[in-house]
Amino acid sequence: MTDRIIEFLRNRREDGPCLVLDLEVVRDNYMAFAKALPDTRVFYAVKANPDPQVLDLLARLGSSFDTASVVEIEQALAAGATPDRISFGNTIKKERDIARAYALGVRLFAVDCEAEVEKIARAAPGSKVFCRILCAGDGAEWPLSRKFGCVPEMAARVLEHAHRLGLVAYGLSFHVGSQQRNPKSWDAALKASAAIFRDLAERGINLQMVNLGGGFPTKYLRDVPAVKAYGQAIFRALRKHFGNRIPETIIEPGRGMVGNAGVIEAEVVLISKKSDEDKMRWVYLDIGKFNGLAETMDEMIRYPIRTAYDDDAMEPCVIAGPSCDSVDVLYEKEPYPLPLSLEIGAKVLIEGTGAYTTTYSAVGFNGFPPLKSYVI
Amino acid sequence: MTDRIIEFLRNRREDGPCLVLDLEVVRDNYMAFAKALPDTRVFYAVKANPDPQVLDLLARLGSSFDTASVVEIEQALAAGATPDRISFGNTIKKERDIARAYALGVRLFAVDCEAEVEKIARAAPGSKVFCRILCAGDGAEWPLSRKFGCVPEMAARVLEHAHRLGLVAYGLSFHVGSQQRNPKSWDAALKASAAIFRDLAERGINLQMVNLGGGFPTKYLRDVPAVKAYGQAIFRALRKHFGNRIPETIIEPGRGMVGNAGVIEAEVVLISKKSDEDKMRWVYLDIGKFNGLAETMDEMIRYPIRTAYDDDAMEPCVIAGPSCDSVDVLYEKEPYPLPLSLEIGAKVLIEGTGAYTTTYSAVGFNGFPPLKSYVI
Repeated sequence: MTDRIIEFLRNRREDGPCLVLDLEVVRDNYMAFAKALPDTRVFYAVKANPDPQVLDLLARLGSSFDTASVVEIEQALAAGATPDRISFGNTIKKERDIARAYALGVRLFAVDCEAEVEKIARAAPGSKVFCRILCAGDGAEWPLSRKFGCVPEMAARVLEHAHRLGLVAYGLSFHVGSQQRNPKSWDAALKASAAIFRDLAERGINLQMVNLGGGFPTKYLRDVPAVKAYGQAIFRALRKHFGNRIPETIIEPGRGMVGNAGVIEAEVVLISKKSDEDKMRWVYLDIGKFNGLAETMDEMIRYPIRTAYDDDAMEPCVIAGPSCDSVDVLYEKEPYPLPLSLEIGAKVLIEGTGAYTTTYSAVGFNGFPPLKSYVI
Repeated sequence: MTDRIIEFLRNRREDGPCLVLDLEVVRDNYMAFAKALPDTRVFYAVKANPDPQVLDLLARLGSSFDTASVVEIEQALAAGATPDRISFGNTIKKERDIARAYALGVRLFAVDCEAEVEKIARAAPGSKVFCRILCAGDGAEWPLSRKFGCVPEMAARVLEHAHRLGLVAYGLSFHVGSQQRNPKSWDAALKASAAIFRDLAERGINLQMVNLGGGFPTKYLRDVPAVKAYGQAIFRALRKHFGNRIPETIIEPGRGMVGNAGVIEAEVVLISKKSDEDKMRWVYLDIGKFNGLAETMDEMIRYPIRTAYDDDAMEPCVIAGPSCDSVDVLYEKEPYPLPLSLEIGAKVLIEGTGAYTTTYSAVGFNGFPPLKSYVI
């Protein structure tokens, strides 16, 4: 929450929930990444918040861009990024989208299997590819999801295949998990990466780059380590596993770049109880899972919520969205403390909502419009 | 899947996934409801699919409309419905939206607590209200969700409050759960409703209406009972609990009205494995949780998926969407059998997707556009 956001909201007269995002915070975050990892190129994960003003600012600051689709590539180009500052980082691409990216000048692509390598060899000949790996250094898989990446043994073969097809087997990528609170989490993946570098070097293929992914957290309710701590831990792990042959590195912060720059203002639509004996209040907001807060799915992200009554006595309550959908409940398994004096019509501020909110909004579920966004 | 849809898709040349919805199926569904429940007014749940052509057809057939927001009220009016055929069925409404609905002529509102009654008394004086109840006849709560409704004892008081404030305490509503496969599920809720009718009659308040809600299923992979069976079971339950004083009834089909009228055509973007030992294929489509298939959340709805290779040998696989989001996986806990001969670039048809797909689409997550829709 910044003074500029408070001032903006004080003057706002329109109805409905909105996100307000302060570019000065984005600028500070970019500078903190650049300073903490001075030898690492920053590829902002456009999907976190593709607002043109955010992309313009980051392009001016010198950021590169990690993109998930041709539309995101076009957005990065429109913001002034040259194609050499754009990575097509989605491992799942239609061959005709690869061709479009190539026509736009993009030469850096993510892969995690031989079939994807073959598409790139046909549609973007001579390009650089990096292979995403799935497992930690000790061979254990990331608990999060197996959707992206392959096991390290397979990665070496995928990159060898790329080399054989005339592509540049450029490097590796991995993801330590979004909102990663432990700066040492990069160590195991870097160990596995170094082993693949050595393995391929023996076969005459010299990888050059490690994509350290995203995962840099934003502060929600609990404190998170500063970016500096991540920079130090990552540099130590690089030295440990690559010795004096540290490869080129890139990072892909999304949440860590814009999460804490945004605040959503919403309104209490209803407060009720289900029975007279029930102590639990249900607090219904005009924002829910389908118009901006999709990341409350499984109560995954617990946003800080501020009200004008926070000095009063608090009681846990269920918080739900405004739609007629029974799954549109934000916090119920772990009820959320809100002031007893909170009233229908009151405004609430939901902090840390600069990332993964606006673009997750449904086009018009239940007739509710997508989340409005103001970048200041 | 209808011949008209097959013909339409044969001639389609555009890129990207799309929904094709056959209005003839919607017409058949409306007729089946009208015939199975001849004394019941049909209020189509607009949120299931608010396409103007769907609303136009239903308005011409004589349907009324259950709406969740002022936008949906305006959509129903635009389709030709008069305000007396519109219910503002969301129990969570801003007072200024109630006033807007009132200004548009709407006089029927859902409530589930006294605070909502007070808003309606102020913003829509003299209107009819019905109270949504939460529990089954024996006092057990619906296992699904407690988001909407209150316990029956409280409902009587809520309606008495409405009566005192000059509103018409009009009736009750409940919801037996979406995609309800048991036609007898209405029995317990009707028993509880009849008890509230008697209770309030003793206090001089004569309720007139029971809103039987939605819940009518559409056929996905398993067969579901015909609408006729629901009509018979509901009529029996009404006779049993209300004797010869059967109240006015309404139903709010959404999925049951449009679900089986729509088919999504999507494309296989990638097929891969995570390791050489891994038997499980990952099949990535160009549609996922964020551009149309939100109801695969927790693998809740299991859509029938057809391909041109369905006579070949099948093997279970994980099916995932095209975005860079690790939660964008459709079926993994219970892998989905697809033909071994399925190839990258092949089209797949996802059936039963006429409801709760287009409007759930994100505005542009990962740069992917919202789901296209063609109504034929």
